[in-house]
Amino acid sequence: MVIEEITGRIARDLEHLKQYTATPGNGCTRLPFTKEARKAVDYLKELMHEIDLEVSEDAAGNVFGVLKGEDLDAPCVMMGSHYDSVTNGGDYDGIAGVICAIEVARLLREKGLKPKRSFVAAGFNDEEGMRFGTGYFGSGAMLGHRDVEYTKKFCDKDGISIYDAMKEYGLVPEHISDAAWEDGKIGSFLEVHIEQGPVLDTEGIELGLVDCIVGIQRYMVTVNGRADHAGTTPMDMRMDAVDAATKVISKIADWAREKADGTVATVGYINTVPGGMNIVAEKVEFTVDIRSRNNDNINDIAARIKKALERETAEYGGSYEIENKLTITPVELSAEMLDIMEEECKELGYSYKRMLSGAGHDALEIGQNLPTVMLFLPSKDGRSHCPVEFTKYSDFAKGTVIMQKLAEELLVK
Amino acid sequence: MVIEEITGRIARDLEHLKQYTATPGNGCTRLPFTKEARKAVDYLKELMHEIDLEVSEDAAGNVFGVLKGEDLDAPCVMMGSHYDSVTNGGDYDGIAGVICAIEVARLLREKGLKPKRSFVAAGFNDEEGMRFGTGYFGSGAMLGHRDVEYTKKFCDKDGISIYDAMKEYGLVPEHISDAAWEDGKIGSFLEVHIEQGPVLDTEGIELGLVDCIVGIQRYMVTVNGRADHAGTTPMDMRMDAVDAATKVISKIADWAREKADGTVATVGYINTVPGGMNIVAEKVEFTVDIRSRNNDNINDIAARIKKALERETAEYGGSYEIENKLTITPVELSAEMLDIMEEECKELGYSYKRMLSGAGHDALEIGQNLPTVMLFLPSKDGRSHCPVEFTKYSDFAKGTVIMQKLAEELLVK
Repeated sequence: MVIEEITGRIARDLEHLKQYTATPGNGCTRLPFTKEARKAVDYLKELMHEIDLEVSEDAAGNVFGVLKGEDLDAPCVMMGSHYDSVTNGGDYDGIAGVICAIEVARLLREKGLKPKRSFVAAGFNDEEGMRFGTGYFGSGAMLGHRDVEYTKKFCDKDGISIYDAMKEYGLVPEHISDAAWEDGKIGSFLEVHIEQGPVLDTEGIELGLVDCIVGIQRYMVTVNGRADHAGTTPMDMRMDAVDAATKVISKIADWAREKADGTVATVGYINTVPGGMNIVAEKVEFTVDIRSRNNDNINDIAARIKKALERETAEYGGSYEIENKLTITPVELSAEMLDIMEEECKELGYSYKRMLSGAGHDALEIGQNLPTVMLFLPSKDGRSHCPVEFTKYSDFAKGTVIMQKLAEELLVK
Repeated sequence: MVIEEITGRIARDLEHLKQYTATPGNGCTRLPFTKEARKAVDYLKELMHEIDLEVSEDAAGNVFGVLKGEDLDAPCVMMGSHYDSVTNGGDYDGIAGVICAIEVARLLREKGLKPKRSFVAAGFNDEEGMRFGTGYFGSGAMLGHRDVEYTKKFCDKDGISIYDAMKEYGLVPEHISDAAWEDGKIGSFLEVHIEQGPVLDTEGIELGLVDCIVGIQRYMVTVNGRADHAGTTPMDMRMDAVDAATKVISKIADWAREKADGTVATVGYINTVPGGMNIVAEKVEFTVDIRSRNNDNINDIAARIKKALERETAEYGGSYEIENKLTITPVELSAEMLDIMEEECKELGYSYKRMLSGAGHDALEIGQNLPTVMLFLPSKDGRSHCPVEFTKYSDFAKGTVIMQKLAEELLVK
């Protein structure tokens, strides 16, 4: 099979899937448990049936296509990604990784291989967490991390819980634990995904071999001062929350720049209360998002922020609160599989670099439990989660070929 | 007349006026050209009639009570303040200065003086600018600075122009220029006002002799960067508008602290766009309000802000815009009248300090054209423009006594 034909098949499948959006003409909006999700899953099943996989949909809404191996007890090789999207997202984030997995199964089938282990193409439900503010719902369920209580806990903006959405969609939330795979059934997990960042596109590199998914800590910080008249309150009688907060915020990016290991830190949101042009702010709220492959770097920046908040608020007698919203420790991906992928890249003459993933993925959830690798493909201008998200079909084909070769090695082991 | 009786009369008048609010139980809301304003003006007229002043309301909604002197061509001594309030403001800001002026007229009348010059108690309309986003409407009209075009230019949040509001209220906007006093008719202007800041209350001083009203410059600043994924965009590939903006904002208060002359600088509002926890901000908007009695200090801080914006945005290839929203140059008040007031304070044993006014007042508008003084009274905890605004009635009485003595000196000159 020449690469142009693989490109063509991937293009056909992804072009077909583009239509399953709730926002035609304005990007892909395929939220979990919606009719768009149902149509996408039905199409994925159709593709899987065409190549004679054993097709199933589990209690969490994940879809699987199994190309059976000789030893049904041997741990399988699973490859996949998610089929949901964010609101007004792109046509590639997630779903392209599912199509690449189906294409690998197709290529294996066409080769007529009957390997020892089974190959499983997977399409996971609700990785993005867009609708219910959660994420990794499907892959988490596969790992046995979701129960019926969980489905009752989270609601969308219309007050509909995961539980109710599942029932409306035709699933039985009480059966959610049936979605868990038995220990030892999955031997390894492979995921192809768009980079969602500018590194590969900027550096003109074809493939990103992801050796680590970064750890993340997120905080909501509140700095408390006192509201005063901006004209009548002398500088030495103020408790200016903006002054204190910005003295901290202005250093956070620099602290990340000092670190190696792909450390990044972002203050994306600042809110001033009451926010009047002529009123000294009584309160500033801001978010901090810190990521690194080295957890010590994350802890160090978080500690520096607390120390600086302590110092700046003490300066004028104010106070602060810092609330941890998320903590994820970094996940190292499988060195053994990465070595195989690197050899294949060299053999095929594809340019590549080892890199980290700054975003979470199903591979983050799964990689905490099973040998996992990810392959990144260039995102034009680093853009994603928006309608202009773009990755070339030929790049997906290259990624597919690498993953096919990796799968073949793993399947016979 | 002993001070306790003056205190009692001021208390009675202000307690009566408290009821003319659109937000009973939640502070004073007496916006211009409303029924609350009408009732307050009618009550002021009633008080003026009681002491046999010549009462008039002009085309701008200002109310005047004239205690006639012997020489009707001699420039008068005018004393007053405004009768409008902000939304959910206090019961003293503005209106107390009108009541103190009427009390001075009352005291002069009771003494049976027949001075050379006339004494005029004035209640100005729309100093706050709350409804139409302007301010100094009434005092400006008295000085001949308002015309019918001006009334058509500004609208409230319901789209009602000053022009329409005036007509609805029973005034004729086409006659607005009739509100202007002839040159030379006003010899001097005196204003009693609450401090609206913490200085007198903190230092335990009874009276503030205001020798300067600060100049003000206001800016709206926009820092432009680029929206990027907070996880997948390495630090050296970002154009982080928050990083650049806070590196500037965090220095502004320090620059003000370096200066003398009561220089203050405030960033009261910051907005991040799009404002996502996991998105590098593409835009930060913030306001700057700089005030000082020394205009060079204001210009210097504004210049430093521009230079810092230049440097920080150049650092990563971003851009900025800075828009001037307001420029007022400082106004020095009458040294001659201040000396008289100081002598009177010493004589009566009142504690006092020379100070500046960090807020604008009718005296700012008038002081640019005529010999003017202001007298500040302590604001509890420096609070104003809110329901808890508080100044003791006995403090108003002390201010009234000082102003009465000043007026007596001026009236016979």
